[in-house]
Amino acid sequence: MPELRKDPVIGRWVIIASERSKRPTDFEIKDEAPANNKNCPFCAGREGQTPPEILAYRHATVPNTPGWTLRVVPNKFPALQIEGNIDRVGEGMFDKMNGVGAHEVVIETPEHCRNLTPLSSKSVEDVIWAYRDRMMDLKKDRRLRYVLIFKNKGADAGASLEHTHSQLIALPIVPKRVAEEIMGSKEYYSFKERCVFCDIIRQELSEGRRMVAENSDFVVVSPYAPKGPFEMYVLPKNHLACFEDLQKHEVENFGKILHLLLRKLEKALNDPPYNYLLHTAPFHQELPHYHWHLEVMPKLVRVAGFEWGSGFYINPTTPEDAAKFLREIEVT
Amino acid sequence: MPELRKDPVIGRWVIIASERSKRPTDFEIKDEAPANNKNCPFCAGREGQTPPEILAYRHATVPNTPGWTLRVVPNKFPALQIEGNIDRVGEGMFDKMNGVGAHEVVIETPEHCRNLTPLSSKSVEDVIWAYRDRMMDLKKDRRLRYVLIFKNKGADAGASLEHTHSQLIALPIVPKRVAEEIMGSKEYYSFKERCVFCDIIRQELSEGRRMVAENSDFVVVSPYAPKGPFEMYVLPKNHLACFEDLQKHEVENFGKILHLLLRKLEKALNDPPYNYLLHTAPFHQELPHYHWHLEVMPKLVRVAGFEWGSGFYINPTTPEDAAKFLREIEVT
Repeated sequence: MPELRKDPVIGRWVIIASERSKRPTDFEIKDEAPANNKNCPFCAGREGQTPPEILAYRHATVPNTPGWTLRVVPNKFPALQIEGNIDRVGEGMFDKMNGVGAHEVVIETPEHCRNLTPLSSKSVEDVIWAYRDRMMDLKKDRRLRYVLIFKNKGADAGASLEHTHSQLIALPIVPKRVAEEIMGSKEYYSFKERCVFCDIIRQELSEGRRMVAENSDFVVVSPYAPKGPFEMYVLPKNHLACFEDLQKHEVENFGKILHLLLRKLEKALNDPPYNYLLHTAPFHQELPHYHWHLEVMPKLVRVAGFEWGSGFYINPTTPEDAAKFLREIEVT
Repeated sequence: MPELRKDPVIGRWVIIASERSKRPTDFEIKDEAPANNKNCPFCAGREGQTPPEILAYRHATVPNTPGWTLRVVPNKFPALQIEGNIDRVGEGMFDKMNGVGAHEVVIETPEHCRNLTPLSSKSVEDVIWAYRDRMMDLKKDRRLRYVLIFKNKGADAGASLEHTHSQLIALPIVPKRVAEEIMGSKEYYSFKERCVFCDIIRQELSEGRRMVAENSDFVVVSPYAPKGPFEMYVLPKNHLACFEDLQKHEVENFGKILHLLLRKLEKALNDPPYNYLLHTAPFHQELPHYHWHLEVMPKLVRVAGFEWGSGFYINPTTPEDAAKFLREIEVT
């Protein structure tokens, strides 16, 4: 059983997933040769190579056979497991709990391709629907407090398989970075009686220098204090704490603008590895001051361990330059 | 002039160092071919290839000529600059200040070698003295609030030159992660009326499962909730907030135990890339609840952007396994 352990100084929880352990001498940083379409377990026709599907968008066909356009399956090497009780206990001064949760993979298309970019905007929209469907389902499990949805694209961004996919991890705790955003936006709300994200959108729309794209429901901006080159935020114009509460037209416009942003990044930065993360409110909390959004971070510079340990970032590219560059990139 | 900018939601400051900027198309993740000893600017005899030295431990020789055992020079591509006023100002809702500070390089030996491990414990001790000397000097500059001392060893850990060296960045703000430790240890101190780090040392010494090494002044432990495989803390037994206040025998024992830890890691993990970071109290603050220490993180797994954005870590190696493995490694 994996364990969740709490850092006694700063309160960050980590997952100790020793079932995934390697022998100490087995660590080696290398570019994994990702499965190509000859042996990819995510391609149509190889449904038997993944655990049975949890969700699929498919034509009238039998589960775990071809005929699907999108599948969600459990991660074959899950960081958390769904069975069991949380059992919070102490170990002397330390705190831990059982690693109860879920770890799922969203296979975004039956064809072997390496990014969301070659798909239609409609297919990207379906990925958003899948995120929402899974979140609504996992919300029913009262042991869970948060679902973290993310994508690792490319080996340098942590992907171990090439076929385009995203992941979700459902947790019995709220990740530290999300908790910080909730606390920070609450402080701003107390002080200003306005949402900090709404204020950001207003200022970015009026200034324009960090704007990358806009449609009727969303803006894409390069944040004022980005952690690294070409970090991008996709912000919904409508003030809403929970991603899963969005309207149908918002799902459509989210799919469209995310698709546009990823195509611009691909063209501008020569198909970079990247991560994206969806930040939304934890389950079963009323947070009038919070505002869900998506953060995209192309992986262009390698420095990492140092930033992990210090919370301190040096960024060689201004967000104004990054935004201007992406604004001017034409994609078809 | 570099700029410091503040994230309006979570309050993290970042350095926007656009003087170091590359064209957007110039980013490429690769293993830099580090300078070998044929053209290394840090080797004895090539003093003219670095900016003039700020500090050197040398025999009775002329500055910026051979005869030294350790040199400190300004970083040739500094993230911050020492001249100018801080000038905190707003940009609408956002906050920024001038990137005033210092960015220095500690060249740890005149010979071309890739790690601290082949040096004598006495040379490692001199590295500690150099950290302290620079910190005492920079403390006089009332614009500065923090000096972050760190080492990137190996290209995968962010080093751009092979010759063993560490760096320091002097800042007009306190890095977020340090601020979190100060706040967390203060809360613990309020609740327990004891130092959280002292309690950790007591529990680790009595349990033994996460202990790696010990001498009369220091312990090396694998922390209870490590961010990644083989993360290690070097903790002084003496409760002290400021690194620079340590006694001579502590400098000696710090050098000895750091040298031992690095040799164990090198042998156990096949000469891994790693980062270390010194966490100490900010300048000119009385923090009776804080306890300085060093954190070492071998870079064994690549996942990074995701952890950056979520504050959420999955670690496949228990600290008990890592500690046992390192305890049993014999080094000469």
